[in-house]
Amino acid sequence: MGGTNTDMGLVSENGTIIQRRSIPTNAYTELEPYVRDMMREINAMVEEQAASDGEAPLLEGIGIGAPNGNFYTGCVDNAPNLTIKGVLDFGKEIHKYLPVPVVLSNDANAAAYGEYVYGGAKGMKHFIMFTLGTGVGSGIVVDGKLVHGSTGGAGELGHNILIPHGRKCSCGREGCLETYTSARGIVQTYCELKGVPVTSDITSKMIGELAHQGDPVALKTWETVADQLGLAMANSVTFSAPEAIFLMGGPAQVGEPLLKPLRAAFEKYLLNIYAGSCQIRMSELRTNEVAILGAAALIKMPKE
Amino acid sequence: MGGTNTDMGLVSENGTIIQRRSIPTNAYTELEPYVRDMMREINAMVEEQAASDGEAPLLEGIGIGAPNGNFYTGCVDNAPNLTIKGVLDFGKEIHKYLPVPVVLSNDANAAAYGEYVYGGAKGMKHFIMFTLGTGVGSGIVVDGKLVHGSTGGAGELGHNILIPHGRKCSCGREGCLETYTSARGIVQTYCELKGVPVTSDITSKMIGELAHQGDPVALKTWETVADQLGLAMANSVTFSAPEAIFLMGGPAQVGEPLLKPLRAAFEKYLLNIYAGSCQIRMSELRTNEVAILGAAALIKMPKE
Repeated sequence: MGGTNTDMGLVSENGTIIQRRSIPTNAYTELEPYVRDMMREINAMVEEQAASDGEAPLLEGIGIGAPNGNFYTGCVDNAPNLTIKGVLDFGKEIHKYLPVPVVLSNDANAAAYGEYVYGGAKGMKHFIMFTLGTGVGSGIVVDGKLVHGSTGGAGELGHNILIPHGRKCSCGREGCLETYTSARGIVQTYCELKGVPVTSDITSKMIGELAHQGDPVALKTWETVADQLGLAMANSVTFSAPEAIFLMGGPAQVGEPLLKPLRAAFEKYLLNIYAGSCQIRMSELRTNEVAILGAAALIKMPKE
Repeated sequence: MGGTNTDMGLVSENGTIIQRRSIPTNAYTELEPYVRDMMREINAMVEEQAASDGEAPLLEGIGIGAPNGNFYTGCVDNAPNLTIKGVLDFGKEIHKYLPVPVVLSNDANAAAYGEYVYGGAKGMKHFIMFTLGTGVGSGIVVDGKLVHGSTGGAGELGHNILIPHGRKCSCGREGCLETYTSARGIVQTYCELKGVPVTSDITSKMIGELAHQGDPVALKTWETVADQLGLAMANSVTFSAPEAIFLMGGPAQVGEPLLKPLRAAFEKYLLNIYAGSCQIRMSELRTNEVAILGAAALIKMPKE
């Protein structure tokens, strides 16, 4: 569930998306019609798959990754980027249509769990996922379990204050990691280095292309971002000593202009007792599949 | 096990220290004679208790909190502050004398677990402990379990880089929390604010007394420390969303000159989604008991 679209998929036991559909989240202002249309699409996927297989697929459950998703309550809590306002109880609404388990979590947490169940973090007991995009999200796995914390909202490393009294953040505070390493933060750094006003005509993708063409300002931008992200990653290691830190999202796709200085910065900032113990890895899930696979993975979480 | 002394205690089921002894750690350069003398003291405590009770106490196990203690291997790994060098396999050495379980962990992790088993964190599933002293240590409990991470060395928040390119740290890096909120860091801040060279004639305890007398530089020192520690604590909440953060150690004993501005700084730096969800609490264990109770608590850890 994103602010613009809601992507849905039928995921098989082995992690293949066998059907997918989408509805525009921002066409809704109430939960009831939104879930009604969501269930219509789910039924359509199930019927299409039944027609193709000759028998109806059994639904193990419905997993949902959503902004401000709270694992404990199963509700989306007042997500500022959604047109549907308030506390949204998905389980209650979905159970009017289908009697299957519903598991909901924050979207970045779901992405991390997707990596654990279907991606490169299989078998790892301790890892951290950073997702770079409009914002910066994170998901943390400790002892093989997603960390939800006492509130259900743990794992918000994008709002770790990296630089005290730094850039103004949308959360109302200053210096959050997100203000430097989100797509917007990267564009701001590029414009500052270039000495031009910050503009929405430039995207982080364009800065990536410029870097691959050898543009010195673009290269310097990624080095700066790498230094900031590398520091944040090294700091996160002092918490849970993960065996790997995964990276995903649009800006991370730039590749070596980010990854090479990122590895160097991470090593420079890492406390010596952790030297060599933690790899930086790219997510092994496809960018266009991670939301669905992450949501599906939530269903695989052991019950307490 | 500290760099100067090794404090030992016989702890009863309910968390009372019924016997205690001490040997000077820094009188030893080899593990064998150190453990031999340690076992001699343990036997003496057991015998003394047996004489007093009329029957010998049953030893459930031996817990050890030590610098650079590794929970997984049961070894102390090259602790720079110890006169006994190298990788120290306590279990192997102790089992020459006594066939009981030996559990070893980092001293701050042990302190956190002591708070969980015997102190103010009883029944909490998520909390973080910061210990202020010569250094700054931490211990983290997630889902009721001490976080050891993939290496056994998780929970080193004293080496979170708080201020990029800040004060030089003994770890070789710059800007670690420890350089600002350890006893030495606090003295440095006081001297800087006072405009005098940093001296070992001043202690954090003296700065505490000055603050209680209303000395403006001392008060400003604690406000500065509170701002730095409050930021670090708020950042740690984005990781595991604990229900409480505990504070212990000498400098924390100053009380309100630190705690009042600390609560304000914590609130100021806390991401809004966590507002009101996490308390700052003082450890409920006595300063002179925490090392022994923390070590003893390790024996109470559920086996995997």
